[in-house]
Amino acid sequence: MSADPVYLDHNATTPVAREVAEAVWPHLTGDFGNPSSASVQGRRARAAVDHAREQVAALVGAEPDEIVFTSGGTEANNIAIRGAARHLATRVAVTSCVEHPATAAPLAHLRDHHGWQVHELPVDDECRVVLDEIPSAAVGLGTLILAHNETGALQPVPDFAERVHRLGGLVHADAAQAVGKIPVEVDDLGVDLLSIAGHKLYGPKGVGALYVRRGTRVAPVVLGAGQEGGLRPGTENVALIVGLGVAAELAAKVLATEVERQSALRETLWDKLARAVPGLVRVSPEQGCLPNTLMVALPGRVGAHVLEAVGDVSASTGSACHAGVHSPNAALLAMGLDADTALGALRLSLGRSTRIADVESAATALARGLGG
Amino acid sequence: MSADPVYLDHNATTPVAREVAEAVWPHLTGDFGNPSSASVQGRRARAAVDHAREQVAALVGAEPDEIVFTSGGTEANNIAIRGAARHLATRVAVTSCVEHPATAAPLAHLRDHHGWQVHELPVDDECRVVLDEIPSAAVGLGTLILAHNETGALQPVPDFAERVHRLGGLVHADAAQAVGKIPVEVDDLGVDLLSIAGHKLYGPKGVGALYVRRGTRVAPVVLGAGQEGGLRPGTENVALIVGLGVAAELAAKVLATEVERQSALRETLWDKLARAVPGLVRVSPEQGCLPNTLMVALPGRVGAHVLEAVGDVSASTGSACHAGVHSPNAALLAMGLDADTALGALRLSLGRSTRIADVESAATALARGLGG
Repeated sequence: MSADPVYLDHNATTPVAREVAEAVWPHLTGDFGNPSSASVQGRRARAAVDHAREQVAALVGAEPDEIVFTSGGTEANNIAIRGAARHLATRVAVTSCVEHPATAAPLAHLRDHHGWQVHELPVDDECRVVLDEIPSAAVGLGTLILAHNETGALQPVPDFAERVHRLGGLVHADAAQAVGKIPVEVDDLGVDLLSIAGHKLYGPKGVGALYVRRGTRVAPVVLGAGQEGGLRPGTENVALIVGLGVAAELAAKVLATEVERQSALRETLWDKLARAVPGLVRVSPEQGCLPNTLMVALPGRVGAHVLEAVGDVSASTGSACHAGVHSPNAALLAMGLDADTALGALRLSLGRSTRIADVESAATALARGLGG
Repeated sequence: MSADPVYLDHNATTPVAREVAEAVWPHLTGDFGNPSSASVQGRRARAAVDHAREQVAALVGAEPDEIVFTSGGTEANNIAIRGAARHLATRVAVTSCVEHPATAAPLAHLRDHHGWQVHELPVDDECRVVLDEIPSAAVGLGTLILAHNETGALQPVPDFAERVHRLGGLVHADAAQAVGKIPVEVDDLGVDLLSIAGHKLYGPKGVGALYVRRGTRVAPVVLGAGQEGGLRPGTENVALIVGLGVAAELAAKVLATEVERQSALRETLWDKLARAVPGLVRVSPEQGCLPNTLMVALPGRVGAHVLEAVGDVSASTGSACHAGVHSPNAALLAMGLDADTALGALRLSLGRSTRIADVESAATALARGLGG
């Protein structure tokens, strides 16, 4: 028990890849220029940021000038949603009922302070958005989470984008949980805006990016000087931007192998748990799911209590805890799970460093904790 | 000429202190938890962020729960100004005419979109704000740059705060350029809100902090989940927050010595330049100025051309260049400098690594470039 628990919480945050950390280091030491300065040091910093922009663009099939660096996925979503809304005449948004707060809160702001109507589409029992519920009237903006952070369910973004475009709207995808875990191509998805979070793809926390398709009008959210084409003012986070660039390049290299490897490990984990724990529910969809994500639930148990009892596994629950009272995750209820099952949810998310031995020991520990 | 030029551009950005970089490193490698996770890794990250909050609070005489971490000075100013405005009934702001865009742009937003009146106080020939021009009617918010980024002039924030408070307003100071260079104590200043930028105090770019006096109501600008007491959502930039904490602790240790040492070096630099270059104007005030900052100007020369010709010195000019046309800095014109002098401005800003040899070689090179 002196070693750290097995880490099956990669959807909360991924470790920083060694190559990323090593690329960041020079920008925390000798290379410290301000990209806005005309000095030698400044021009060197500018070149580093430009290179990272190319790396991030390449990962999602974009052009470098379509990438805006941000402080993370939350800020990217804010610029995409509130920044685009500033230029949209049709104050109608379409989204799902299972979005991350970084999408839901900006939409609520548009509704409460800017007269927007927000249509929240329901999801089916696989956490998949029901596109037929899109209203047939004009739409200003559609926004959808590409990979659901809890269940790992992949949303039908291409179909959503086509429908929203037909209704005259712009399309944003929150791809924070998807980029680096599955192939993401902005043209295949058909999106105008796409959010990326560094710390979900083995890059650092505190940096992210927003893809803005050429010709898409977006206003900044944080206001100041003219950095990042005026869309994200403030001195650039050079070191972590460089890290995000390397993380993007690395993700492109290992993606295909890791998708296959992690899916196989995940199925092993499920098989072992399902065999050991009668009545265990697989909440994550079997198809159309992030390859690393397995959400399970044992009705009648509280996920958080199970994790506390197990100790040897780092993972998440779908529930929130306030003042000792656990309440089930709204997304799971929206899928049709009863509160009893939703409270029992455990999110097990694998990563690049997960090995079969980790899966085996985690399965054993979890089975014990679940009373299997 | 193979070595880098002498770096006299510390007001643009400071090198990251070695102690800071070394404190950041573990959080880019083994310690990667998400502070919002209940896992072992997450709790460790939370503890690191908490410790940094204590370090930053200590530097400015605040309590840890009064510190909100941001992505930098620009975001801190945005939260202070627009976030406070959300709860203020009196839509009148008082500021100076020499603020940074990170203050001026949020104020312009309040004026253009939220019905605020913005009073810009003039400055005298030392770049000092003229407090007697504060209107005598009720004020919602006063905001002032504590140390001017170009001239280094220190503003009379305590007196400003007292007057604005008397008129019923909250007081914010943009201390991005001041913290770590001079002693800054929130109670001595009498401010309710104060912005800090990591990369101006030998910390990393991409991280900053906002001091929010207990009881001051502020709304978030970027919207999402509940991090940083709901004031700054998004997964915490753990590594750079840790770096900012160490930078703050280090600043407290070396401040007194460095104030004295850098002031002396700066005077040496001025003496050498003034002797070598007849007609050279000292734009920075002699008293009440950042100890590291010397802005000079030679009327009839363009600062940017001088720097290009010199080559061996990294520094800034007060002017902006668009499409090859140089225009003088508005703050310098506001001080009463004629356009000819303002165009000749050079900002020389020293730092902790500046040695007498640097000052001597920079003075020689600059004197040559200035035709002395």
